Amino acid sequence: MKKMVKKIAVTGAGGQIAYSLLFRICVGEVFGKETKISLRMLDLPAAEGILAGVAMELEDCAFPLLEEIHFGSNPEELFEGVDCAFLVGAKPRGVGMERSDLLSENGKIFIEMGRALNLAASKDVKVLVVGNPCNTNCLICMENAPAIPRKNFHALMRLDENRARGLLAKKAGVNPSLVKGVVIWGNHSTTQVPDYTHILIGKKSLEEVIDAHWLQEEFTETVQKRGSAVIKARGKSSAASAASASVDAMRALFTPTPSGEWFTSAVLSDDNPYGIEKGLIFGFPCRSRGDGEYEIVPNLPWNYFISEKIAVTQKELLEEREMVRQYL
Amino acid sequence: MKKMVKKIAVTGAGGQIAYSLLFRICVGEVFGKETKISLRMLDLPAAEGILAGVAMELEDCAFPLLEEIHFGSNPEELFEGVDCAFLVGAKPRGVGMERSDLLSENGKIFIEMGRALNLAASKDVKVLVVGNPCNTNCLICMENAPAIPRKNFHALMRLDENRARGLLAKKAGVNPSLVKGVVIWGNHSTTQVPDYTHILIGKKSLEEVIDAHWLQEEFTETVQKRGSAVIKARGKSSAASAASASVDAMRALFTPTPSGEWFTSAVLSDDNPYGIEKGLIFGFPCRSRGDGEYEIVPNLPWNYFISEKIAVTQKELLEEREMVRQYL
Repeated sequence: MKKMVKKIAVTGAGGQIAYSLLFRICVGEVFGKETKISLRMLDLPAAEGILAGVAMELEDCAFPLLEEIHFGSNPEELFEGVDCAFLVGAKPRGVGMERSDLLSENGKIFIEMGRALNLAASKDVKVLVVGNPCNTNCLICMENAPAIPRKNFHALMRLDENRARGLLAKKAGVNPSLVKGVVIWGNHSTTQVPDYTHILIGKKSLEEVIDAHWLQEEFTETVQKRGSAVIKARGKSSAASAASASVDAMRALFTPTPSGEWFTSAVLSDDNPYGIEKGLIFGFPCRSRGDGEYEIVPNLPWNYFISEKIAVTQKELLEEREMVRQYL
Repeated sequence: MKKMVKKIAVTGAGGQIAYSLLFRICVGEVFGKETKISLRMLDLPAAEGILAGVAMELEDCAFPLLEEIHFGSNPEELFEGVDCAFLVGAKPRGVGMERSDLLSENGKIFIEMGRALNLAASKDVKVLVVGNPCNTNCLICMENAPAIPRKNFHALMRLDENRARGLLAKKAGVNPSLVKGVVIWGNHSTTQVPDYTHILIGKKSLEEVIDAHWLQEEFTETVQKRGSAVIKARGKSSAASAASASVDAMRALFTPTPSGEWFTSAVLSDDNPYGIEKGLIFGFPCRSRGDGEYEIVPNLPWNYFISEKIAVTQKELLEEREMVRQYL
């Protein structure tokens, strides 16, 4: 049997998240052990030396699935025919930088990514934006790639979902695989809404196992602020866990979602069944048949606590969109 | 079916190699998707904050196989009952440090590792020394753990094997999985002997595909000096590729080696079928039935070029052993 080859692009490929992500992609964690990989690594011209070094290390792993490696700083060239793109590269928030400056700096990057994908990528490409502020970066990218279906753009909320599952598993003293039904609504920021009201631990509802007050107060805040807590402990921002979530997020699109379950992805809010404003990239519960497509899982009720918080995260995303209006 | 749990220790767990290795262990790349993991991360007391951060990130991945995480700076405590130990932590060579100083500094570390494993680990523990100079560090560790079978100690030569396979695959324009029969004899240092004389590329001998002069000159030197070349390009030493090779090396002991094939591991030279001096940790071609044990594959002939080089690497290992005699 001839193995299929997928063309996979990773931007910010000289950075720390990519340094974890690339090797996990190349062992087959996204598309399985039967799919070969044509890898395309993009970064700024100044990082080409680093990319050369990373390419050497990838060669040095003798990965059976890795058919070829291309790298450089020209997105159109590297995105040629790609089936799947992890957009990790983004401008980090500098000291004293306003949120509007951050959005604006990143806006320029994601216009370029969108235009290059539009020109060069497979029309079926699946795009996962990892670089923050990822929801609005994803929106800009999507709006600048009109030839690609708008449903094909995702922003990474899986890290928040995984964090919530890990935290609840630890609190309940069970394995994370027993924690089901987590949704993270809205923006991948501190306004995100980790929704514990649909979670089952084994066959029990979460509130049978864990104190409701802890859930409303500590759980929500711990998940929202986990990124800063990791930086404080490790002295560096989350890289390997962000990479792991990126693998999980992309694989979820190519794996049938088990019946009655869902995963969180931030996707276009047009036609969403929850009344969220159109034209946002918003964290929703999603399910897939494993063909790369997804649908938003409908009919999850919101209690008062959750719906108030969802209004806040929606407002933030609307404000972010206003700040980048000129890029859309 | 109840899943088995393996206790896996990683030392130098706050460092860069471990930061790649830990996550690959936790997705099941060593013991497969049916074996749960009790993870033990060791580093110096000064790194405990970093370990706490890494532990948070591991929790944040919600790995279904990761049952528990312990970390700290007390080896006896963390090695309690371990089935498998990756000894990554070592003192790197400082500016102006002599080789004898390097061996001596590391000697102290690996005495401590050996004694702690001897007291605390499973008597069946498999030990892979990754920290350099890994062959002699492994020897010291083994000699200080008399209760553990001497065959259970390995030093990492798989990185060199993978580098050789990657390089030959690239040169021949084929996938690395088609490159078979690589052995790296001797010491994981610049005297190592990458032996190309038994290699097949597909069904062809290597010398039918690649020029013999290139093999003797460029190939050997490129593999020997690849570590420095990566540092030069990337600005940092090989971490992800060393981690990948560590995964491959440990997994090779728990996977039946395909008939007619072998992998390289540096193991005790007592009873070796090649006439190498006893009492060294030396890179040999090995095969396993997948039960954690191995045997050295006999009867690979050496040509003049190879046997001359093997004499040199053996001499270096004998000299290293002399320098650490007081630790054995």
